[in-house]
Amino acid sequence: MVVQNPHHEIRTDVREHRSPKYDIAPLFVNRWSPRSMTGDPVDEAEFMPLFEAARWAPSSYNNQPWRFLYATRDSDHWEDYFNLLSEENRRWAKRAGVLVVIVSKTTFDYNGDPSQTHSFDTGAAWENMALEGARRGLVVHGIGGFDYEQAAVVLSLPADYAIEAMAAIGVRGSPETLPPEMQAREAPSDRKPLTDIVIDGAFDGCDNGGEETR
Amino acid sequence: MVVQNPHHEIRTDVREHRSPKYDIAPLFVNRWSPRSMTGDPVDEAEFMPLFEAARWAPSSYNNQPWRFLYATRDSDHWEDYFNLLSEENRRWAKRAGVLVVIVSKTTFDYNGDPSQTHSFDTGAAWENMALEGARRGLVVHGIGGFDYEQAAVVLSLPADYAIEAMAAIGVRGSPETLPPEMQAREAPSDRKPLTDIVIDGAFDGCDNGGEETR
Repeated sequence: MVVQNPHHEIRTDVREHRSPKYDIAPLFVNRWSPRSMTGDPVDEAEFMPLFEAARWAPSSYNNQPWRFLYATRDSDHWEDYFNLLSEENRRWAKRAGVLVVIVSKTTFDYNGDPSQTHSFDTGAAWENMALEGARRGLVVHGIGGFDYEQAAVVLSLPADYAIEAMAAIGVRGSPETLPPEMQAREAPSDRKPLTDIVIDGAFDGCDNGGEETR
Repeated sequence: MVVQNPHHEIRTDVREHRSPKYDIAPLFVNRWSPRSMTGDPVDEAEFMPLFEAARWAPSSYNNQPWRFLYATRDSDHWEDYFNLLSEENRRWAKRAGVLVVIVSKTTFDYNGDPSQTHSFDTGAAWENMALEGARRGLVVHGIGGFDYEQAAVVLSLPADYAIEAMAAIGVRGSPETLPPEMQAREAPSDRKPLTDIVIDGAFDGCDNGGEETR
């Protein structure tokens, strides 16, 4: 079910929704967060490359604070992972092949001091994972709507680690597998204009947050 | 000075240092964090595509909490930005063309509630920026060694925003431009093995942090 796209061009279905203003690698624009999945399993040979991509992200002192814990849908841990999700997310993530909890180590390996960038660095690794998944034609959908405290229990999270996010990985399916209101949202989302997120010098005392553009 | 690499193969100088275990986009492996830069300026047409790439990262509720504040080396803000850096980082970052402070908005635009993922999401955008820069042959080097509190002052950081990291963007130069001890480190860094960062199910009660591998 993996579709290789060696040419990395912006796909026509994506181009309808997204217009980058500069010439960038189409991989960034083609990555989006579908919810429709077939419910098929995704085996280790298919999902391990996503973690391999994550591995090469940069981090402060090369501390590599990211940890990826996963449950495949046929595993003993699946139900525990699945039950962490909000009701809303269960409605589509039930057709994932793999659920992932993304964790960060909050301290530096080399001296045990707290890291200021453990979440930020782990987000960088997550993006590599999402991009490699998109390149392979897999659904990779990040999830913030889940029970963070219960996740720490389910994972036996050690001290000095923090729960960052979850993600669903799956085989892309037809939008018809989704509840009707989710079908309507099943398209690449747009973004704020660059002028809302890039600032020459300093904030001007007003809020450059771009609330107006949502 | 921009080198396009449309074939996205793993470069020979990188291959000496890094061996991915799975077939992933070479872009992830080719991205590393050089320090040697020529001191040439980098103009807007060259650095804006990096922020364009960042723009397409995923975020919780598509909140896009990332903000990129920058100073080019010929700008009035350069000195303020440069003086934020630690002594160690000034020694190489003085040859950057652009310094960037990466900031996140800590609350959701749509309801003002705190976000649990503002740093994590902003890290994802940062990775897109770093990857696009690497693709263009630019140096893009993330920096954690700077004065976070003073950065908030320099940027007139509004409430509900947090300083995440800095980055230097520049034209790749010869390692001889670096102090001798930095020349020795001027090569792509390796990573922990996948078995240290990927866990099936749950932590086992020991520390899977891979301290042993550093």
